[in-house]
Formats: sequence, structure tokens, C-alpha cells
Amino acid sequence: MNGQGRPAGAPARDVVVVGLGSMGYGMATSLLRAGHRVHGVDVSADRVANFRAEGGVDAIDSPDTLVIVVLNAAQTEAVLWGEDGWAGRLAAGAVVIGCSTVAPVFARDMAARCDAAGLHYLDAPISGGAQRAADGTLSVMASGTPAAFDASEPILDAIAETVFRLGDEAGAGSAMKAINQMLAGTHIAAMAEAITFGMTQGVDPARTVEVISQCAGTSWMFENRAPHVVDGDYAARSSINIWPKDLGIVLDIARDARFAAPLTAAALQQFLAAAGSGLGDQDDAAVAKVYARNAGLRLRGDS
Amino acid sequence: MNGQGRPAGAPARDVVVVGLGSMGYGMATSLLRAGHRVHGVDVSADRVANFRAEGGVDAIDSPDTLVIVVLNAAQTEAVLWGEDGWAGRLAAGAVVIGCSTVAPVFARDMAARCDAAGLHYLDAPISGGAQRAADGTLSVMASGTPAAFDASEPILDAIAETVFRLGDEAGAGSAMKAINQMLAGTHIAAMAEAITFGMTQGVDPARTVEVISQCAGTSWMFENRAPHVVDGDYAARSSINIWPKDLGIVLDIARDARFAAPLTAAALQQFLAAAGSGLGDQDDAAVAKVYARNAGLRLRGDS
Repeated sequence: MNGQGRPAGAPARDVVVVGLGSMGYGMATSLLRAGHRVHGVDVSADRVANFRAEGGVDAIDSPDTLVIVVLNAAQTEAVLWGEDGWAGRLAAGAVVIGCSTVAPVFARDMAARCDAAGLHYLDAPISGGAQRAADGTLSVMASGTPAAFDASEPILDAIAETVFRLGDEAGAGSAMKAINQMLAGTHIAAMAEAITFGMTQGVDPARTVEVISQCAGTSWMFENRAPHVVDGDYAARSSINIWPKDLGIVLDIARDARFAAPLTAAALQQFLAAAGSGLGDQDDAAVAKVYARNAGLRLRGDS
Repeated sequence: MNGQGRPAGAPARDVVVVGLGSMGYGMATSLLRAGHRVHGVDVSADRVANFRAEGGVDAIDSPDTLVIVVLNAAQTEAVLWGEDGWAGRLAAGAVVIGCSTVAPVFARDMAARCDAAGLHYLDAPISGGAQRAADGTLSVMASGTPAAFDASEPILDAIAETVFRLGDEAGAGSAMKAINQMLAGTHIAAMAEAITFGMTQGVDPARTVEVISQCAGTSWMFENRAPHVVDGDYAARSSINIWPKDLGIVLDIARDARFAAPLTAAALQQFLAAAGSGLGDQDDAAVAKVYARNAGLRLRGDS
């Protein structure tokens, strides 16, 4: 479907979306566009009001679907099981779609607790950024029971272009998301390291991007983020603040597994230095500024 | 030309290739195929004999071209300026094409000394691996004077598919090569880190490769090397031993520039651990074995 609407005859769903941030807001509007009834919940009254203005309903009794797009595991748990949590307000047999980046063991725990409460749980972390969320063309790394997948299908149709079906147990989706974030974050820091290293040797960032994009040293993140450094454009498509969170989750999982991840750990330190020096709300390519500052270099756009 | 032969009317060149390793041997045969007279030099008498059997000439008086494809800067310097060095045996106005991975400052020094000796120097590190060397389809990151480029053109035509022209001063080619190696080595280690991390979460390496190749976490090296881990196939296309050398050169350059490169440094440690534990001659994807051993995991092909 890819946000193109419901198939003829498919019933509209009663959906609550919790978390109307850069990802959740776009997903909620994609669900509206597909013809579902959607109630949006957020700590920001402004976002809730904006979403109502776009067609969100004021309230839904006994929703059949709960989509959780919050910051982390603790918020996910609070949404479901906290005081006045949604687990107790869903229709019998409803499906909970957990889209936040969490540890696989947490996803398995959520699935078990939902199962005990007569609910389905789909472990469904998302990837693709705010624009693709708004377009209904996200990638979803999903795992869960066949019943959870069946119940989620019209929702996934509305929000995703690609759904990776990673098995019939919650946790596999979150594991793959962690693998992807580990690589993505490491590659962004490596991009910044390489471009600024090149500057110390007199190589202009634009030339580095031009050549390396055609060489074995390239990566998806290099090609996507390096142009931001070249242009000195740090308007956040995806912010620095994502990475202390996501690489922190990755390294928590790794530590629990007694897995040594030295590159990921080094990348996290660079993002922490970026966040700590006031760059948290800038585009994640701004990690290049940490390298530049440490090497006495001036990037484009530096004052 | 891409190894397809000389253009009609272009004169055959008298070329000495020093270093008949996995790259130099293929380059020398590509030069033969293009119709040039080629004399091959190596510390291995077997390789020299093999190259003669393929059409290499026994000796060349006053060669007009010297292609240096040795291990490092020290060997490059010895080839040119050591006892009985080639700088004193080349024709007046000959061109020296330096293909080894070296520091930009070393390349500039070679160019200055060649200029003083009436020779041209092209700073021309290569990329692409043994198969593309044999096919005459390497990538060359080249810089040097217009005269050095002119003199090198038929040679580059024979060995390369892509020539990046990086300026009219030696050093820029070596700088770009260092940037590429920094990223390539870091991405190989990151690939190994991510695949084995996934295994701790129950994710099969084949599934990781299938999914991540379509996600933002992918890289050229991930897609090229990760299948070796999936297959347990460590026959060396490019060996572990390349990386302590190349990342060592990169970090020497970085240190001289007072540039902190924490991800590259972490990657080097993993390749050192691989080489130190006896994996030096295996494919560089075998760095995954360091991660697996440290985490108590068994990769495909492990005994």
C-alpha cells in the first residue's frame, strides 16, 4: 500500500499512536491518509492539537491498535503498563506495535506481558527518517507471532515501503535494528573522521566526497551525510542526540552479552563530545565539528 | 584503453616494474598486453621467472618508465635511491610512477628529488585488488605535474579503468589513498563487529547481510566482505596483513598532523589482534574471528 490507502473492503482500524515526534507524527498522518481512525497522544499539547487539525480524532474507546513511537524502553513500558497505561484500555485481542529502539530482551518481555493480557505484540523498530515517515515509506524490522503480523498488516501497509519479516518471536526485529544502528552510527563518525583527516592533508571535503563515493571506502552514511559537511548545512534531518541514545542502547545490549565493541564505543564517545559541546540538536553530520575542533581545522560555516 | 592495447601509432614504452606481488604482477602483465616492453623486478626469483615466461624481457637499458609497486615508503626510497637505485639508471626525462601507499609528505619528497634528477614523478597509489590489477582495471588516485601525467598516460591507460586526477602536486594522490584506506579498514572492522554482535542476539550472519545490505547501515566493504564471513571462506582476496600496514601509515600521517582518529585506531587494534593470533594471511574478513573468539561465538568454518 505504501500509504496509498486501504485495499477495497479492508475495514478502517481504530488506532492510537503514542509519540508524535518526528517519526510518530508522520506515521500517524500516513495512517490517517490510509483511511484509519487515529488518535494521537504526546506530552506536547501543541503536537496533539496539530494532529487533530490534520484529521486525528479526539478519543477512541477500546482501540484495536496501539502504535508506540516513544524515545526508549522506559517510555514504552510506561505507555503500556504505567498508571492508566494503554494495556488496560485496548480492545480484547488488540495489537501493540512497538516501534522504538529497545533491547531484544525488552521486546521479548513486552510480548510475553501482552500475551498474558490477551494482546498481540509486534516488535517493529523503524528506519528511514522523518521524511519517509511522513510519506508512509519507512523500513520496518519486524518480528512477532503470525497473529501479531496479521493484525499489523494494514498498519504496516500504511507506514512502510519495506517490511523485513525477521521471525515469529519478538526480539529479532529489535536485534536487527541494533545491528543497523551500530553500523550507521559508526559510519557517520568514520565519515567525519575521514573528511577532517583529509583536510589536515590539504584535501578539500568536496573532493573527498567526490572521489570516495566511487571507491571501496564508501558507505550509505558517507554518501548521505558527507554532503552536509561539504555544504556546512547542519539543519537536523537526524540529530546528534539520536546517537548517545541509540549507541547507548546498542552498547548496553553488548555489555549484557559480554560483547566487546571497540569501534562502536569510540563512535559513541565522539557523539557524546558533540552533544556535550552543545551540538545535540544539529544534524548528526555535525560530529565532524568535534574532529575539526580537536585538530584546529575550520569547516565550512564555522564562524 | 583499460588494458585493451595501445592506440594506433602510440609508441611502445620501455617499462621496469619493481614489485611483482599480487598487485604489481597483474599490472606488469597488463602492460605487456598493451604492447609495452616490460622488465619485472622482485625479491622473489620465482616471480621474476614467471613473469619472463609470460613475455617480460630480461633487461632494459635506460628505461623511460619506472613503476614502483612495493610495500611501503622505505622500499620505494630504496628502489629509487638505494645502492644501484633505479633513479641513476633511467633515461633522461623518464617518469617514475609511485603506486605504493605512502605518506603525502614522502610522495612530495620523492617528487622533489626526482625533479632535481631530471625525472618526472607521478604520485599514483592504486586501489581495486589483485583481480582488477590483472584485468588492467584498477583505480588510480593520481597527482603530479602535467608533464608527469603526460608521460604516464599510456601506462595508466594500460593498468586503470578509473584515474582520479587530484592536482598538479605529488602528495594529493597519497592523501586520498590514505582517506580511502582509513574508511575501508574501519568499515571492514565495523562489519565484523556488527555481524558478531548480531550473533550474540541470535541473528544469523546470513540474515544480517540480507537485511543490512538494504539499510542505512550498509557500506561497500560490508557488502563485499560480509559474505566471506557468512560462507566461512577466508581465502585471501585482500589479506589481514594489509591493514596493520595501511592503517599504520594512516595513523602515522594523522599523528604527524596531530589528528586524533579514535575509530581508525580501534580498527587497527582489531587487525593487529587478528595478525597476532595467526590470521595474517587470511582474508581481511577474518577480523571477525577476533570478535567471535572474544565473545565465545563460533563462526561458520570454525573447528
